[in-house]
Amino acid sequence: MSKRVLILPGDGIGPEIVREARKVLECVNSQFDLGLTLDEQLVGGAAIDATGKPLPDETLAAAQAADAILLGAVGGPKWDSIPDFAIRPEKGLLGIRSSLGLFGNLRPAILYPQLAHASSLKPEVVAGLDILIVRELTGGIYFGQPRGVRVKEGGVREGFNTYVYDENEIRRIGRVAFEAARARNKRLCSVDKANVLEVTVLWREVMIELSAEYPDVELTHMYVDNAAMQLVRAPKQFDVMVTGNMFGDILSDAAAMLTGSIGMLPSASLDVNGKGMYEPCHGSAPDIAGQGIANPLATILSVAMMLRYSLAAPEAADKIEAAVSQVLDQNLRTADIMSAGMQATSTSEMGDAVLRAL
Amino acid sequence: MSKRVLILPGDGIGPEIVREARKVLECVNSQFDLGLTLDEQLVGGAAIDATGKPLPDETLAAAQAADAILLGAVGGPKWDSIPDFAIRPEKGLLGIRSSLGLFGNLRPAILYPQLAHASSLKPEVVAGLDILIVRELTGGIYFGQPRGVRVKEGGVREGFNTYVYDENEIRRIGRVAFEAARARNKRLCSVDKANVLEVTVLWREVMIELSAEYPDVELTHMYVDNAAMQLVRAPKQFDVMVTGNMFGDILSDAAAMLTGSIGMLPSASLDVNGKGMYEPCHGSAPDIAGQGIANPLATILSVAMMLRYSLAAPEAADKIEAAVSQVLDQNLRTADIMSAGMQATSTSEMGDAVLRAL
Ligand SMILES: CC(C)[C@H](C(=O)O)[C@@H](O)C(=O)O
Ligand SMILES: CC(C)[C@H](C(=O)O)[C@@H](O)C(=O)O
Repeated sequence: MSKRVLILPGDGIGPEIVREARKVLECVNSQFDLGLTLDEQLVGGAAIDATGKPLPDETLAAAQAADAILLGAVGGPKWDSIPDFAIRPEKGLLGIRSSLGLFGNLRPAILYPQLAHASSLKPEVVAGLDILIVRELTGGIYFGQPRGVRVKEGGVREGFNTYVYDENEIRRIGRVAFEAARARNKRLCSVDKANVLEVTVLWREVMIELSAEYPDVELTHMYVDNAAMQLVRAPKQFDVMVTGNMFGDILSDAAAMLTGSIGMLPSASLDVNGKGMYEPCHGSAPDIAGQGIANPLATILSVAMMLRYSLAAPEAADKIEAAVSQVLDQNLRTADIMSAGMQATSTSEMGDAVLRAL
Repeated sequence: MSKRVLILPGDGIGPEIVREARKVLECVNSQFDLGLTLDEQLVGGAAIDATGKPLPDETLAAAQAADAILLGAVGGPKWDSIPDFAIRPEKGLLGIRSSLGLFGNLRPAILYPQLAHASSLKPEVVAGLDILIVRELTGGIYFGQPRGVRVKEGGVREGFNTYVYDENEIRRIGRVAFEAARARNKRLCSVDKANVLEVTVLWREVMIELSAEYPDVELTHMYVDNAAMQLVRAPKQFDVMVTGNMFGDILSDAAAMLTGSIGMLPSASLDVNGKGMYEPCHGSAPDIAGQGIANPLATILSVAMMLRYSLAAPEAADKIEAAVSQVLDQNLRTADIMSAGMQATSTSEMGDAVLRAL
């Protein structure tokens, strides 16, 4: 039976970068005879403009039916002032994550040797960097109830959110992280704030319980403030990090930026069966949208992750990754990773170069 | 009337570094005829060991009676496994902050030119760095109710905390930040996660309302994940940042680490009247406690902040800061800031050097 891939270009630079990634996916689809069928739908701000909703029913149904999803990015200033909090581009993204149960977010932070100079950190601090951040994506304070803004006695406005995890949610993401560590360098650092927040006391307890099943993996614990410091000070001390939704949002972005080339980093969001949504780590970058200068490589590398994790096509994934490395070796650079002596390359030229390398 | 300073050495390296800072305080006390009386009490793990409680009544009463408090640091692995969450060293610190209403936490991240090489970031990225992070310290998820770990139906454990702010709390810390920005470079960046968390939607709203009173200060907003990235990418873009308790904990530690010399950074925690607690940004560092190698300069600089903000003795503060700069110029270095060609200096030698410079 043919597998279905849903493509969600989204907002900002989303459509431009996804266009290139789609070309790459179509290319390997025929090269490897994968028999994938591709569909495309609206999400985020683009969906609000067309239908009034960030996640139209049709998009959700297509996402549910798909075997894998490729997302560009959502959001932008155009929709920031919509007063109704339920009608924001981000709600489209959060809605897919939650409705599809995509709880396991894998965010690699890898420094490409060709781009070592791009980091704001000293070369010796980041050379060879290869961290995997495993972030819980469908729970925690992002989805906890109760939440809202209410008016207290005396007419005083009060905002509130709830940070909540039960042991099953923690164990589920913990397993993803322990398995990932087992397949890598067998070191897992769990990040919490167990000296202040009870919810993370439970987090730490469950991680310790779980570690009994993974005697080959070394489990350590770190407070989130220290983790933020250690990422800046000596990031190569980490192999795999696991944490909740909010801390993961912050730490994975900091970790990605250590490489200096966030335009290169893909991510995967997986459900219990390995079905997933794949997207670049960078956002919709509305300031450069429509200019044809965005870097499509993170999205192209997201296609590779998709082929490996959700579509059982690891050879096609390897080939795409090799092709990306090759275009870097050819000194082709989009603006975000440009440096002296390199060849300035547009979004579509970069996509074409990857196609040639394939 | 003589002013009272309460000294709380705390745990780990706390007693060692506070000893040097106390010598410095006593020196300027007589040099400038400040008429300060000094008292010392237990807090944190040291207080648990002696009294069973992290914040004994006597300590709290002394803190309430004092005009300013100098704290070393609290916590350590020795007390990490105490099952009762109320009897942790950190609860002593949080108890003082909360009981005394020390809501305004000022955390400067300054790069000392003499220590420029110590940063893990490239010199051009951090040279001249001077950021002030203003963190709300008595509200948010640190203190929100309800909180705890409960057992749900089916025997499933669930942990929960509440992230809550009302508009008065936000306005109060907002004013501190706007005033600080006004006295500096007039740029304030408010950090939130208003695309996901309602409590920070209110935060952003109140900051915008407040900005009408500070037309001379430029207010911008940034999502916390982006703020973590921007601190790594280009920290000098910031002047003053303001954020809630949890985000402030993470971002201020990351910002401090950008300097590479967290052993140099003081902090202040102020109430509505300018009474405050002063402490180094680094923690209790139990791994090096008792070896006489800890850097006392952050604590000595905390004394300077105390003299300036709570004790109306700005000349004494200036003199201490100049003395610290002088010992750095003399190439004296504790282990944490040591580099080739510099002179290795112990904790007490460093304190004595500052005394000589005074
Ligand atoms: C757009 C936003 C809702 C999202 C998040 O906070 O999860 C983004 O920052 C991310 O990390 O994917
Ligand atoms: C020790 C701990 C409770 C404290 C905090 O989280 O506030 C510390 O990290 C700090 O930043 O002062």
